[in-house]
Amino acid sequence: MFELHPQLRHDCCLIGRFPLCQLLLLNDARFPWFVLVPERENVTEIYMLSEIDRAQMWRESHQLSECIVQLFRPDKLNIAALGNIVPQLHVHHIARYTGDAAWPKPVWGVGIAQPYDVAALEQRIAQTAKWLAGSEGFAACPE
Amino acid sequence: MFELHPQLRHDCCLIGRFPLCQLLLLNDARFPWFVLVPERENVTEIYMLSEIDRAQMWRESHQLSECIVQLFRPDKLNIAALGNIVPQLHVHHIARYTGDAAWPKPVWGVGIAQPYDVAALEQRIAQTAKWLAGSEGFAACPE
Repeated sequence: MFELHPQLRHDCCLIGRFPLCQLLLLNDARFPWFVLVPERENVTEIYMLSEIDRAQMWRESHQLSECIVQLFRPDKLNIAALGNIVPQLHVHHIARYTGDAAWPKPVWGVGIAQPYDVAALEQRIAQTAKWLAGSEGFAACPE
Repeated sequence: MFELHPQLRHDCCLIGRFPLCQLLLLNDARFPWFVLVPERENVTEIYMLSEIDRAQMWRESHQLSECIVQLFRPDKLNIAALGNIVPQLHVHHIARYTGDAAWPKPVWGVGIAQPYDVAALEQRIAQTAKWLAGSEGFAACPE
C-alpha cells in the first residue's frame, strides 16, 4: 500500500491525482511550487519505476509544466528529483522569477517557508485544479 | 545549428553523444556529476521539446542513471533541470553520498568546484564511456 511520506504530508496540500502521481502544492507562498509523487511503494529513484510508469510520470510532468507556464508565466521552470532528505520519490516543479526570494539559486534551503494564508491557499489549489480539469486523466480532490 | 552554451563548454568535458543529447562530465571531482544537453537550438525548458524528443531524452536519462548507479553505487541520485544561470536546457545527474561535500543539501552553489587532475579526469571519462558503449545509441567521443 502506497502511503505519502509524513514530511510531504506535513509540508504540502493535495490538489488531485493523475493516473500515476499525486499532485501536491508545497505550502510556501514565496514560489508556485508543485510536487508529483508516484503512488508506488518503496520507490526512491526514477530508474526504479517500470518503463510504463516512467513514461506516464513524464507525461504527467509535461501536463503540469504546461499548467504552470500558462497560469504563472514564470521566467524559468525548475524540475528536480532530489530526495536527499525525504527519500520517497517526488519530483519538484517550481515556477521561478528573476526577482523571487532565491533567484538565481535553487530554492531548497533558502530562507524560511512562508505559509499561504487560508484564502490564498484555497485559491491556488482551486485555480490549479480548474486548469488541470481539462487535462487527460487528472482528477481533483473531492471538495 | 546547435551550439553548446559557453559556460557548459567551460565547466564540462564531452564524454559522448546519445541520439539526442550530448553527455558531459562536470569537472568537479567532489561529485560524479553528469549533464545531458539535448542538441536542439533555443530550447530552455523540457516542455519545449517535441513529444518524441522528450521521450528520447528520458530514455537517455534512464540509460545514464543505470550507468551511474552501476559504476558509482551512490546513496542517492539527484536529477534536475534548473537553468537559472545557464538557460540552455541541460539536465543534471549527480551521484550523491551521505558523506559528500554538500550532503544533504543540493550541490549547486556549495563550496568551490575541485577540478579533477588530468589522469583522474581521463579515467572517469573512459570508465563512463566504456560502460555506456553497450548502451543503445551511445557513441563515445573520438579518442
